[in-house]
Amino acid sequence: MDGKINLAEKLASFAQHWSPRTVARFNDCDVMVVKVLGEFVWHKHDDTDDFFLVLEGTLDIELRDRVVTLGPGEMYVVPKGVEHRPVAREEVHLLLIEPTGTPNTGDPATAAPRITA
Amino acid sequence: MDGKINLAEKLASFAQHWSPRTVARFNDCDVMVVKVLGEFVWHKHDDTDDFFLVLEGTLDIELRDRVVTLGPGEMYVVPKGVEHRPVAREEVHLLLIEPTGTPNTGDPATAAPRITA
Repeated sequence: MDGKINLAEKLASFAQHWSPRTVARFNDCDVMVVKVLGEFVWHKHDDTDDFFLVLEGTLDIELRDRVVTLGPGEMYVVPKGVEHRPVAREEVHLLLIEPTGTPNTGDPATAAPRITA
Repeated sequence: MDGKINLAEKLASFAQHWSPRTVARFNDCDVMVVKVLGEFVWHKHDDTDDFFLVLEGTLDIELRDRVVTLGPGEMYVVPKGVEHRPVAREEVHLLLIEPTGTPNTGDPATAAPRITA
């Protein structure tokens, strides 16, 4: 991972949904791309904010009191401790940043494994 | 900063080069957009990696032994302690992430102020 990272190329290298690929490290964080489709589970991260940048498609980030709808080039940071549920009515490509080791569901027992693309 | 963040709208709100605008906070980091044109100074950050994602244009990140050239949708993380010089031969729009308070030149005496967009 010592060269430039083309996010579209990384995304083209896999098809599986809800399975983030780590494309770079930034300090103690994983920079990841992921393809999502459908509804994720309601969850929260008690120890970290959750960074979402939409690269392609439209993502709803459902919060308990409202919905944040993101298109390409739009981002949102879910503050730590805030329950949220990502919902993609079409396939959505995202850039995510989370501290290395953060379970994507907020719970190690149900989290997707981290794969390096 | 509790709604969605449209990066293009944030970038359209100012014209000044090399003057990062903070658009969100992620844990202890500032998420920033910046417009750059021309050559920056050679510098390094001893305590943090330096995250670059090109949104528009083409950026050369000169390292002492090579050049990393990034187009839209391409990113690079300059590891902490590594000297680098961003060079933009045309106006380039970037997303940057750095720990809050990081001087953009690596030196508080010469750093640009942090402005919230």
